[in-house]
Amino acid sequence: MSIFKDWHTDWGLYTDLYELTMAQGYFLLGRHEEHAVFEYFFRKAPFGGGFVIFAGLYELLNALSNMRFSENALEYLKAQGFREKFLDYLRNFEFQGKIYAFPEGSVVFPYEPVVRVEGPLAHLQIIESVLLNILNYASLIATKAMRMRIVAGEGVVLADFGMRRAHGLASLLAAYASYIGGFNATSNVLAGKMYNIPVIGTMAHSWIQSFDSEEEAFEHFAEMYGEKTVFLVDTYDTLNSGIPNAIKVAKKFEKKGVKIRGIRLDSGDFVELSKKARQTLDSAGLNYMKIIVSNHVDEYLIERLKREDAPIDGYGVGTRLVTAYDQPALDGVYKLVEINGKPRIKISNEPEKVVLPMAKTVFRAIDKSTGKFAFDLVVPADSKGLPDSAIAFYSPQQETIDIDKSKYEVIKMLQPFEVKDKLESFSIETIRERTREHINRLPESLKELKVQTSYKVFFANEIITEFEKLKQQV
Amino acid sequence: MSIFKDWHTDWGLYTDLYELTMAQGYFLLGRHEEHAVFEYFFRKAPFGGGFVIFAGLYELLNALSNMRFSENALEYLKAQGFREKFLDYLRNFEFQGKIYAFPEGSVVFPYEPVVRVEGPLAHLQIIESVLLNILNYASLIATKAMRMRIVAGEGVVLADFGMRRAHGLASLLAAYASYIGGFNATSNVLAGKMYNIPVIGTMAHSWIQSFDSEEEAFEHFAEMYGEKTVFLVDTYDTLNSGIPNAIKVAKKFEKKGVKIRGIRLDSGDFVELSKKARQTLDSAGLNYMKIIVSNHVDEYLIERLKREDAPIDGYGVGTRLVTAYDQPALDGVYKLVEINGKPRIKISNEPEKVVLPMAKTVFRAIDKSTGKFAFDLVVPADSKGLPDSAIAFYSPQQETIDIDKSKYEVIKMLQPFEVKDKLESFSIETIRERTREHINRLPESLKELKVQTSYKVFFANEIITEFEKLKQQV
Repeated sequence: MSIFKDWHTDWGLYTDLYELTMAQGYFLLGRHEEHAVFEYFFRKAPFGGGFVIFAGLYELLNALSNMRFSENALEYLKAQGFREKFLDYLRNFEFQGKIYAFPEGSVVFPYEPVVRVEGPLAHLQIIESVLLNILNYASLIATKAMRMRIVAGEGVVLADFGMRRAHGLASLLAAYASYIGGFNATSNVLAGKMYNIPVIGTMAHSWIQSFDSEEEAFEHFAEMYGEKTVFLVDTYDTLNSGIPNAIKVAKKFEKKGVKIRGIRLDSGDFVELSKKARQTLDSAGLNYMKIIVSNHVDEYLIERLKREDAPIDGYGVGTRLVTAYDQPALDGVYKLVEINGKPRIKISNEPEKVVLPMAKTVFRAIDKSTGKFAFDLVVPADSKGLPDSAIAFYSPQQETIDIDKSKYEVIKMLQPFEVKDKLESFSIETIRERTREHINRLPESLKELKVQTSYKVFFANEIITEFEKLKQQV
Repeated sequence: MSIFKDWHTDWGLYTDLYELTMAQGYFLLGRHEEHAVFEYFFRKAPFGGGFVIFAGLYELLNALSNMRFSENALEYLKAQGFREKFLDYLRNFEFQGKIYAFPEGSVVFPYEPVVRVEGPLAHLQIIESVLLNILNYASLIATKAMRMRIVAGEGVVLADFGMRRAHGLASLLAAYASYIGGFNATSNVLAGKMYNIPVIGTMAHSWIQSFDSEEEAFEHFAEMYGEKTVFLVDTYDTLNSGIPNAIKVAKKFEKKGVKIRGIRLDSGDFVELSKKARQTLDSAGLNYMKIIVSNHVDEYLIERLKREDAPIDGYGVGTRLVTAYDQPALDGVYKLVEINGKPRIKISNEPEKVVLPMAKTVFRAIDKSTGKFAFDLVVPADSKGLPDSAIAFYSPQQETIDIDKSKYEVIKMLQPFEVKDKLESFSIETIRERTREHINRLPESLKELKVQTSYKVFFANEIITEFEKLKQQV
């Protein structure tokens, strides 16, 4: 299932007005079918980290294949002043571009084309906004999730609890992206159903408040949910009421052969509370009971709790995951790099805002001795083979590299995707597995929460030469 | 139109799993129809400011009135282990609660109930997640938008350009909420159509790049769009190429009687560039041309540009509006305060996390001499008249107030809303107008970007006495 397939088949208006204004402009000039190439890339890995997990491609392809303009939509555009002839053109709109992209779930890096789109100028212009809207957010959240997974390690359960603080319907894509980024489950039922993600959730404070006593609330819940039960222990007083009541009820059920799953801490000092809780639970012979923590969880808190040996088995992660609290946007852009076979650039006083010309593709060099990702190489899309040398154009040192082909296995990363017929073959498990494998191949230094080094992305000399030439002509 | 009405009529699964787990629990215990009262409130005005604009009620009511469980949804829940009897109950689900809320667009303050929901316990539990999901985000963005409007003043155009960095479909609610918060328009076409918001947008860099020269690009655009034209001037070099070309083309069209609308600056030092641009345009006799600025715009930038007398007529605001960049979540919560007529509390070591008991309503005291909001008074929902004295419970000083009824006009703020039949009467213009009027009545000190004082919310003694009593009983 998909937001962009099952809710609507009329996504044409899900765009910024200027895309349609420009598309009409191209159309009225007879330029709308000129062959264009746009590329999607970002400029900075978020959160001070060393990588981005590319996510959202599945929903983007759904959106593109369902991009239509109904009569109702056309009427609205007419009222905005669009012209009849252009509306006739939109009436038959069916996206004709070709998508070349990193497979979803890949680890990607600043400035390399993550997606390249080729096709009719007007079509490629119209899709800009929706492409950015989906890919920027999904990639941001998959990345945020993976940072938490890296810090937490493999054994710990991470669950998305963010629906209440997510930006409206963003909660669905958040659940999707965080699962790709290594989370185990979501609390969001609709997301679970749509994307086939495990769903979890037990009780809130209101459950406990609704009974006359906490013990009674725990007991009734355990009666119904047995070994699925997780007691929320901070409604009144964690140490003096919540945990003692949890133990009392758990022991009672143990006698009936039912092992209560655990407790959840939702406030207070998690180091102190989790240690005391573990000790008390163990003393009571309840060492099978898990300790789950929620409230203000992010990679920095997980890292600190691990460092201080807090015995925590799982985290419910809300606000800071789904809003990407410390950096709520990925700076991905979608830029024209070629029109009618002619390369295009954008110049800026800010060197990082320069756009390099030509349709490009990406090769990834993998160190044969370690199996780790070594560097990426951006080359013209029609290149036969690899260049001998390349430049880290956006790096302050602009270092060059001579490519020793014997040392590296080199893989072409951008793959063609059809918007129409490949959606059935997408599997979120495959994507999630790809992410895990890519992260395993990433050098450790790039997995730090705040990186000191950055992964090198080199551009073939040919691209830089073309850029310098075009710059002179402006 | 509405996301929650036109896309789906099956929003039952748009919730956190634990809501359904608890609802089934209540159901199996025969408690699901017990009369409950929940309240929605937040604890802190975001961004260091002094107020929140309450938004999202319209979409919440749409969501509640379209909350159903299709057979397909029930099948999914069955696979998650829910029991047949409970699924039968959900099959007939139609939300039965009553909503009491501040009218949408109201200025609201920390700790007061912004929405009170009364009705069957299970229903009120199930809606928690979607209520928080919609209200937290919409209110956050309406507030952010209003901060920019306050700083920019009335004459300046503010437009939402945020779709590409919004969190997926959050872009729609962002456009809606920012319009309520005083923005003039959005670039988001679907949001414009759904919510009846003016849409604007002219050209991106790609338009200019797609031509062989910038001048040619400007000329073709002006030919088609005439007085709607805004030239984007930073594709190659703002001062040496963009502005001179804009002037050249504008003068040419002036001769034909067409007044080009303006230019847009999208990078660089906006103080310097806007001053130079204004001077150059004026020298060329183009004083009617407007200067629009986009890129990293927020209230702090607008404030600085105004302070430095940058002659800017309008702003396109993207990322920092729609993601609420410096604080991407409002901390709104939804808490049980009464069950079967019995008041309920939540206790915490953190004093701000205490939940006060009883179904409540809010009166606002307006200073008769100034017409400004003076303080709010939270009282039991069934109060006859005002109390004589009240306590600012959550304020560090916990000051009390004796209410001099001759000095204030007192207005009851929470109004009943029906989820079924009142949606047609909602008008975004009425809501926006209410917001403007409320902001006019807000004391100036609370409109500062970082406030030193806070608006006082007093709680009737009766509520505090009840709280102290219940606290002893736990």
